[in-house]
Amino acid sequence: MKKKADLAGLTALIYSERQISRARLAEKTQLAPSYITLLVRRLQQKGWLFEGEHAPSKGGRRRVLLHFNPDLAHVIGIQLGRVYLRVIVTDFLGKVLSFKKLPSETREGQAHVLELLRREIGDCLARDPAIRGIGIAHSGMIDHANGSVILWPRVQGWRDVPLQETIGREFGLPTIVEDSARTLAIAEQFFGQGKGQSDFVCVHAGVGLGAAIFIDGELYHGHDGMAGELGHTSIDEDGDLCVCGNRGCLEVYASGSAIVDRVRKALEQGVASTLIATAVERVENLSLELIAAAAENHDRMCETVLEEAGTRIGMALANMVNLLNPSRIILGGALPRVAQKTLVDSLLRSLRSRAFSRAVSRLEVVISELGEEGPAVGASLITIKQILHDLCIAEEAGGLCSQAKLSNPES
Amino acid sequence: MKKKADLAGLTALIYSERQISRARLAEKTQLAPSYITLLVRRLQQKGWLFEGEHAPSKGGRRRVLLHFNPDLAHVIGIQLGRVYLRVIVTDFLGKVLSFKKLPSETREGQAHVLELLRREIGDCLARDPAIRGIGIAHSGMIDHANGSVILWPRVQGWRDVPLQETIGREFGLPTIVEDSARTLAIAEQFFGQGKGQSDFVCVHAGVGLGAAIFIDGELYHGHDGMAGELGHTSIDEDGDLCVCGNRGCLEVYASGSAIVDRVRKALEQGVASTLIATAVERVENLSLELIAAAAENHDRMCETVLEEAGTRIGMALANMVNLLNPSRIILGGALPRVAQKTLVDSLLRSLRSRAFSRAVSRLEVVISELGEEGPAVGASLITIKQILHDLCIAEEAGGLCSQAKLSNPES
Repeated sequence: MKKKADLAGLTALIYSERQISRARLAEKTQLAPSYITLLVRRLQQKGWLFEGEHAPSKGGRRRVLLHFNPDLAHVIGIQLGRVYLRVIVTDFLGKVLSFKKLPSETREGQAHVLELLRREIGDCLARDPAIRGIGIAHSGMIDHANGSVILWPRVQGWRDVPLQETIGREFGLPTIVEDSARTLAIAEQFFGQGKGQSDFVCVHAGVGLGAAIFIDGELYHGHDGMAGELGHTSIDEDGDLCVCGNRGCLEVYASGSAIVDRVRKALEQGVASTLIATAVERVENLSLELIAAAAENHDRMCETVLEEAGTRIGMALANMVNLLNPSRIILGGALPRVAQKTLVDSLLRSLRSRAFSRAVSRLEVVISELGEEGPAVGASLITIKQILHDLCIAEEAGGLCSQAKLSNPES
Repeated sequence: MKKKADLAGLTALIYSERQISRARLAEKTQLAPSYITLLVRRLQQKGWLFEGEHAPSKGGRRRVLLHFNPDLAHVIGIQLGRVYLRVIVTDFLGKVLSFKKLPSETREGQAHVLELLRREIGDCLARDPAIRGIGIAHSGMIDHANGSVILWPRVQGWRDVPLQETIGREFGLPTIVEDSARTLAIAEQFFGQGKGQSDFVCVHAGVGLGAAIFIDGELYHGHDGMAGELGHTSIDEDGDLCVCGNRGCLEVYASGSAIVDRVRKALEQGVASTLIATAVERVENLSLELIAAAAENHDRMCETVLEEAGTRIGMALANMVNLLNPSRIILGGALPRVAQKTLVDSLLRSLRSRAFSRAVSRLEVVISELGEEGPAVGASLITIKQILHDLCIAEEAGGLCSQAKLSNPES
């Protein structure tokens, strides 16, 4: 660790470890224990760090574990999807303090959705004065460099929308907009199924299909920030045209919206189904949840549509496995959550039969356990890391480090 | 740089930079200039390093550039392909000293091919007493961990062959067996189109189709060493069965062997072509070179087959680009080399029309310029790095570093 990055590096390490002893910090940073002690004391005095549990004793002295003050800052985490808007507030450790879910009303146009966002953010701020930042997980194509929405496939009027800049300026708070597959993956790495994994892929299968690729423990963005567009890998060279201009894209066949479209068409064509009689009075009310429930009750048509979608996602994942050979695939989003039995079973069958046996034999495929707030939690975590980084920069400018350095025997 | 890895780290840096000044070494390693000077002096005394050119002056003192002694060791580099065996000897800097190409005679069985390898290696060793290692680029599926051939698709009798161990033991020399797409990529990174690139993909399109993925300047192997199987990504869910068990794999349609098969079938079915009349007396003599030459002369059938192959490789690359968003794709191997005009043109068209415009707009697609010895040169480079590493370990054990450390003011 370079001297100049002492504070930022140290706090990022404490944050990512969630709780850690001073001795382990010294070990991991290779900084002098006395210097660590000094820095930690100052961070305690400032109210950043608390002492918590004790590490299990190994014969020697029990070591107290340090963790961040959960109330150092609260953050709003938002998932803006095509169907739902989810709004949470988390503490500094990512714990969810409040959760709200409402229709995102994307059909009403961009201005309407922005207004909805403003209202919800405003409500949170009015309720919780500890909020210091806003993270937004968005299901469109996001420019990672500046948090603008390049394009929101299947939603009218979203092209080159500077969402991060607009919201950040309006509320005067650090704001980050990121792709929801990536924010989910970050939450998985911090709390969930990605913990301790080095090379893994997190698939977010909801209305659309995205993936976040981790290489050597780091989220891989690609040269132009475009990596992970799993939904736009083609599985059929002569397949149907996709909104992206390619043919046979996975999203055309196997996304949440494709599944609803297929069932709607089948119903309109009069295919026998228990759906109409039981739950769906009007075809417009169809939802993934209703289709999955019908499949659970052995509605043949819904079973077939979900199985086919699973088979095709499995094919695209097999291609990805043959290219990237990850150790683990985490399946997140509404699709595996509501249609686990039908869809995930067929997905696994096709993945295992199509990918190289050597690449799948040790591959673990797991379902996200973070629940529907996963992407919003990840958006919050990204923002917290940014806030922490900004705090460190301010502190370093304010001389905390230079004072501390006087006592660092290694500097 | 950790103290313990000083020598290995320093020499690896000098090697990868090819030539570097002492001042730049100190800058890059953050070791004390006096310590660098001492270590370099010892390496010069041992005959590892030479002083060469001077760096362009920037007003100050002209700096002499250090480089490795090209004759510190010579290495045999071999490319064992399904059609040809290429054998080179390189000096320590990877310069090709001799080149030989002969049929690999894979149809005669594994024992025969191994005998051929032994004979060629024996010949090289008899001619050049400076040879200290053997690198083998193999077109089969290689277990990166131990250099054994897991499987050689379309070649009988190669399954779980411990090639690296067999050759290494027999000749008593450091021996490395690696996938030929990866060795080509390593040569590209060192000398060629991969120089200075961080996130790039090198495609080796010969009889088969493989890829090597570089992330952040490092070759990415995947969790089980299986990353990069581009030829076994499917482009057609209901396509023809592949030897790997999947359907619609790119290799089934667009590899060198698929192209030859398609033209052979067309000829057998009596499709009009200039091939028979001009060059191919017997259909068995068909080769990629003949097909490419016929296409250059506007043989419609050969043009069509090559164009279709290019289109399909472009599709698979579009999928890869949407997943990985690299900055550059390097096309190597026999296909782009002999059929550049027809095949590469259609490849680029389909890649650009199918991948996200944002991911291809800055993407560079370039053709390897290393020639047909590229994969063998890469095999040699991998082995040289291993030899250098082993030399450093031996030196460190012998006390070179501990002596030098006495004068390192930072230790």
